[in-house]
Amino acid sequence: MPKSGENTKIRILDAAHALIMGHGLAGTSIDMVLEKAEITKGAFFYHFKSKSDLARALVERYANQDAAHLEENLKRAEKLSRDPLQQVLILIGLFQEEVEQLTEPGGGCLIASYTYQFEELDADIREISAQAVLLWRQRLGAKFEEVIAKYPPRLVVRAQDLADGVVSTFEGAFVMMRVLREPTQLSMQLAHYRNYIELLFSSAQ
Amino acid sequence: MPKSGENTKIRILDAAHALIMGHGLAGTSIDMVLEKAEITKGAFFYHFKSKSDLARALVERYANQDAAHLEENLKRAEKLSRDPLQQVLILIGLFQEEVEQLTEPGGGCLIASYTYQFEELDADIREISAQAVLLWRQRLGAKFEEVIAKYPPRLVVRAQDLADGVVSTFEGAFVMMRVLREPTQLSMQLAHYRNYIELLFSSAQ
Repeated sequence: MPKSGENTKIRILDAAHALIMGHGLAGTSIDMVLEKAEITKGAFFYHFKSKSDLARALVERYANQDAAHLEENLKRAEKLSRDPLQQVLILIGLFQEEVEQLTEPGGGCLIASYTYQFEELDADIREISAQAVLLWRQRLGAKFEEVIAKYPPRLVVRAQDLADGVVSTFEGAFVMMRVLREPTQLSMQLAHYRNYIELLFSSAQ
Repeated sequence: MPKSGENTKIRILDAAHALIMGHGLAGTSIDMVLEKAEITKGAFFYHFKSKSDLARALVERYANQDAAHLEENLKRAEKLSRDPLQQVLILIGLFQEEVEQLTEPGGGCLIASYTYQFEELDADIREISAQAVLLWRQRLGAKFEEVIAKYPPRLVVRAQDLADGVVSTFEGAFVMMRVLREPTQLSMQLAHYRNYIELLFSSAQ
């Protein structure tokens, strides 16, 4: 059965992504990608000019999926409550639901992997990575602005820092999960961040 | 001036550490280490049998420094207050003081770097990495047990998870700092974790 070009491209990206998450960028050769994706060198170079071109395509795809994932869950949270604080808590809860499915500690963040090998990257790849994180700051920062305006926080905080905290929680938990081989780290760390938000904006009791 | 063997060994470790934090393990060749440390291949192989041997020595040194750093600051915190909650808050405060000095976003965690390239590592190197993180769970977990016994937390939490949260906060903040090139991420994320502990154990007001 002939495979379409788009299909081949996806197989290359999937294979390269999986390899890079275990071997790092420099530890992943084009030959390793060819073998894992079961394609020829010709097919590879039809789709990608170089390994750097592949690395860029990978982070672009990852950033796009990440952005879509954020928007989708933000939209769900906004439908599930009118209140900005509840929306944030629901959003983190939705992420928790998702990561509770994880049983393998192999997951992680492509951007974190790249950032620990930044000297191997072209400047534009670093920029795509930064923009992916800054999108969370922008989208969740706006949401936290609403929360702060409605509920006076019990300690002085900046909306953008609380937004960064969500991303940082994911990043920290991914590292913990990988080092300790404990997939439960993700939902646990998210639960604590949710606790923090809840306590921070709870009115004095 | 002749250099002692110990001195040469330290120069190799320092050069390799710096290179690995930028290029990753696979992206760091022995030749790159020789050039950066300004030593000969003979001197290198006098101290290390292989690159894997070097990688092991690096993480052993890092884990030892990390453990000493934790003990030292825990001891300072225990001198500064008798109260376990204050000790934890002071400990995080001491870490904040330290990272506030950072002006370059190049820092990070060697163990996190390794974990994003785990397929390149021998099993014993992964074990040393995990043990380094588990030490924090053990030492801070015991401290959080004391806190929980003295101050009923406002939400249900486990001491060991709160201890993991400290390490996870560092790990997440390192990734954020590196991706965004914002050295302030470290002290900011630690400040939020400190907020969380404060709110969690504050009595109802």
